[in-house]
Amino acid sequence: MTQKTPVALIIGAGDATGGAIARRFARGGYATCVTRRSLDKLQPLIEQIRADGGQAHGFASDARKEEDVVALIEQIESTIGPIEVMVFNIGANVPCSILDETARKYFKIWEMACLGGFLNAREVAKRMVARAEPGRRQTLLFTGATASLRGAANFAAFAGAKHALRALAQSMARELGPRGIHVAHVVVDGAIDTEFIRENFPERYALKDQDGILNPEHIAENYWLLHNQPRDAWTHELDLRPWSEKF
Amino acid sequence: MTQKTPVALIIGAGDATGGAIARRFARGGYATCVTRRSLDKLQPLIEQIRADGGQAHGFASDARKEEDVVALIEQIESTIGPIEVMVFNIGANVPCSILDETARKYFKIWEMACLGGFLNAREVAKRMVARAEPGRRQTLLFTGATASLRGAANFAAFAGAKHALRALAQSMARELGPRGIHVAHVVVDGAIDTEFIRENFPERYALKDQDGILNPEHIAENYWLLHNQPRDAWTHELDLRPWSEKF
Amino acid sequence: MTQKTPVALIIGAGDATGGAIARRFARGGYATCVTRRSLDKLQPLIEQIRADGGQAHGFASDARKEEDVVALIEQIESTIGPIEVMVFNIGANVPCSILDETARKYFKIWEMACLGGFLNAREVAKRMVARAEPGRRQTLLFTGATASLRGAANFAAFAGAKHALRALAQSMARELGPRGIHVAHVVVDGAIDTEFIRENFPERYALKDQDGILNPEHIAENYWLLHNQPRDAWTHELDLRPWSEKF
Amino acid sequence: MTQKTPVALIIGAGDATGGAIARRFARGGYATCVTRRSLDKLQPLIEQIRADGGQAHGFASDARKEEDVVALIEQIESTIGPIEVMVFNIGANVPCSILDETARKYFKIWEMACLGGFLNAREVAKRMVARAEPGRRQTLLFTGATASLRGAANFAAFAGAKHALRALAQSMARELGPRGIHVAHVVVDGAIDTEFIRENFPERYALKDQDGILNPEHIAENYWLLHNQPRDAWTHELDLRPWSEKF
Repeated sequence: MTQKTPVALIIGAGDATGGAIARRFARGGYATCVTRRSLDKLQPLIEQIRADGGQAHGFASDARKEEDVVALIEQIESTIGPIEVMVFNIGANVPCSILDETARKYFKIWEMACLGGFLNAREVAKRMVARAEPGRRQTLLFTGATASLRGAANFAAFAGAKHALRALAQSMARELGPRGIHVAHVVVDGAIDTEFIRENFPERYALKDQDGILNPEHIAENYWLLHNQPRDAWTHELDLRPWSEKF
Repeated sequence: MTQKTPVALIIGAGDATGGAIARRFARGGYATCVTRRSLDKLQPLIEQIRADGGQAHGFASDARKEEDVVALIEQIESTIGPIEVMVFNIGANVPCSILDETARKYFKIWEMACLGGFLNAREVAKRMVARAEPGRRQTLLFTGATASLRGAANFAAFAGAKHALRALAQSMARELGPRGIHVAHVVVDGAIDTEFIRENFPERYALKDQDGILNPEHIAENYWLLHNQPRDAWTHELDLRPWSEKF
Repeated sequence: MTQKTPVALIIGAGDATGGAIARRFARGGYATCVTRRSLDKLQPLIEQIRADGGQAHGFASDARKEEDVVALIEQIESTIGPIEVMVFNIGANVPCSILDETARKYFKIWEMACLGGFLNAREVAKRMVARAEPGRRQTLLFTGATASLRGAANFAAFAGAKHALRALAQSMARELGPRGIHVAHVVVDGAIDTEFIRENFPERYALKDQDGILNPEHIAENYWLLHNQPRDAWTHELDLRPWSEKF
Repeated sequence: MTQKTPVALIIGAGDATGGAIARRFARGGYATCVTRRSLDKLQPLIEQIRADGGQAHGFASDARKEEDVVALIEQIESTIGPIEVMVFNIGANVPCSILDETARKYFKIWEMACLGGFLNAREVAKRMVARAEPGRRQTLLFTGATASLRGAANFAAFAGAKHALRALAQSMARELGPRGIHVAHVVVDGAIDTEFIRENFPERYALKDQDGILNPEHIAENYWLLHNQPRDAWTHELDLRPWSEKF
């Protein structure tokens, strides 16, 4: 029987950061599995990874649906290989005054940015714990934001979801670290070089010329490094921001 | 037309802490409105407040249901009086390994301990902002816990909900403070003198003799003091713990 | 033999906050001992307390000199009474670019705002621990600032001293709390109504009309309340800021 | 005129961590300057670096003496080359009950673990700011510890110094980041594989077999990576701890 290639699973590979992380792990030799709700939109990423000689698999999966997630992880593990690293990278920020925020939107932001992280990480963790042994690298990575650390006017929903995701990462680190699973949380503090920023915040996007917005490839490199840390010196949390960003 | 008595609304008055807070505000002259899902269980508290000469009104309200909450706040404001202070005091801690946690329970804990806080605080805040003026005291108070500040093994769900609630309190403080609404978050760090602790953690309950568990009346006094702070010196967050508690 | 009046010792009673704290404890029946480097400048405060019917004693003491502090505490304990509450209230903020900061000033700010706190608190704590018993209230209070929580451009020296003072308060709380000594840290975040602000920041001082700067009497009330907390519900840290202050 | 090799300056290269950091930067092509109070003890490190083909220079320098530090930085800059990265790595932990702590030791720990960091970082920063330009990498790195984040019983002195050092790093990052200098703080949380641990904490040292103590080379790698981060994605703080360490 052939040895299966270890898998890097990126939940929420639809944005620039998720895509860059997927490419980074593919370049590192991983069978990279990428998910988002619609498969169509993943095609360009998958093709790009394959064109670069990497291995990529796309999955339509709603990260908020327990059955979907359970099936997804089972499918990947049985058909592609053991998930060695999982990255949860779904955000969902829609700023709004607390006075106008709706229950529906408040819930939806939490569901996407937090519940999805719980579901995917739990399913993956179950497998990781079962096969954990010294020398076996297994990692769960979560993308955080400024809002993970403090609430702000108009950010109650997003900050709530991101705080909860950070609490998840901490709780998992404290439970699973001693069982050999590396859990880390990356606080991205600043605008990222994306279509979204280009179109909606042109004055911020203009900072790109002086490196004032984050390059997704540089973010991705940190995920790669985190996964590759030896187990005697693990990082649980690091921040990333442009040199010119106030904090 | 008669002047309406100002209202203190305690969401989640079913436990010892909520009950003590209700009694404290009733003693301070407020028309105290208390809620929990079932009205029956509120009767002893209401009767006790009335027997002590206070004014109390009970409401069956599911803090997680937007229509319920909208109707509740409308009813109180139109029939009893303007809500001058709201306390959100619903917790829901059921420790569980992350490997065994279910989506249902993870959601339910968030729904009770966080979503309910958002819904009630938003509805009350809308009214408060509309009538805010210098000299008018209006306060939103949230009960936090150790898990509001850090995740821990087996506490992913509760820590997530409590972190999110703290993010809500911070976000509201930063948006509504400058509009004259005092928002504060009380971190209760330690066991409270309750039936639950007596029955389930007898060895902890035994610490009561040496003041090693929190007296709900003493917790309540801090809510009262927070509400009465002059607006040039507001506290946003304070912790409360027994002298003997490790932290 | 006559029973000695319990003592409230305020180290750094020269500013508006220290003065207000001294008055508050004098009003509460304490023999209030106030210190600053020069006795002359304490006279108005002492006279005011006495005129209000309180008991006040002034001491010239350099909080940074170990012998001075050892002698001061010994003198107070032997001639006036047991120190029941100590407040360390010396600050020393002189903002400066890190590029221009001198070793002398960096040291001096630490020496005043931190070392003095250590020396006085240690000397008082020795006595408190020796006589600690259930029902005996003994408290050490430290005045913090925004800079206690985060560094900022031009605040390296002050933030360093204030961070160190907070570390002292935390370390003492964790060591002495279980021995019955209440240690608390008050984060004052905002301008205080003082001569200094009036003269140097007139535009900030103008906020006084709308309660935009902290009233020292209101700050003092919180110190009083902290000292009076029952030991089953102690606060270790609280913040105080005007309603309109950004944070 | 010949181009000077860029310099990596490690203040406090006497311990295992400082030595490993020096070797890492030497291996990366830097003229590595290492300091400690006595030159003798640096010889083995210098010889090792040279034997490995690296460039190393030793300096006896008392990091706590302003004149020493001013002279040291001037000498290095004029005789060896521009300092591109500075690492401040002096610790000084001697646990002690707050009741027994002396002023002399409290001061000394601060002087070594904090004042030295201020003096060296300020002197280096002056030069860095003067020559800062896009594309020029210049970094100031500080070694932190668990005690940088929280006080603990018996750790008042060390926690004070480490909190102050962290405040320095934050203040410098906020002032100098926007001027192109990368300032970062590494929180080392756990025992390090050193002589000291081997001799004094044998039961901890025994964890080495299962990677339960930090390998200095692995710590050093993170300093190297921090210095090499592109300026659109800088980390200000990261933690490092063994997988099995409680936190």
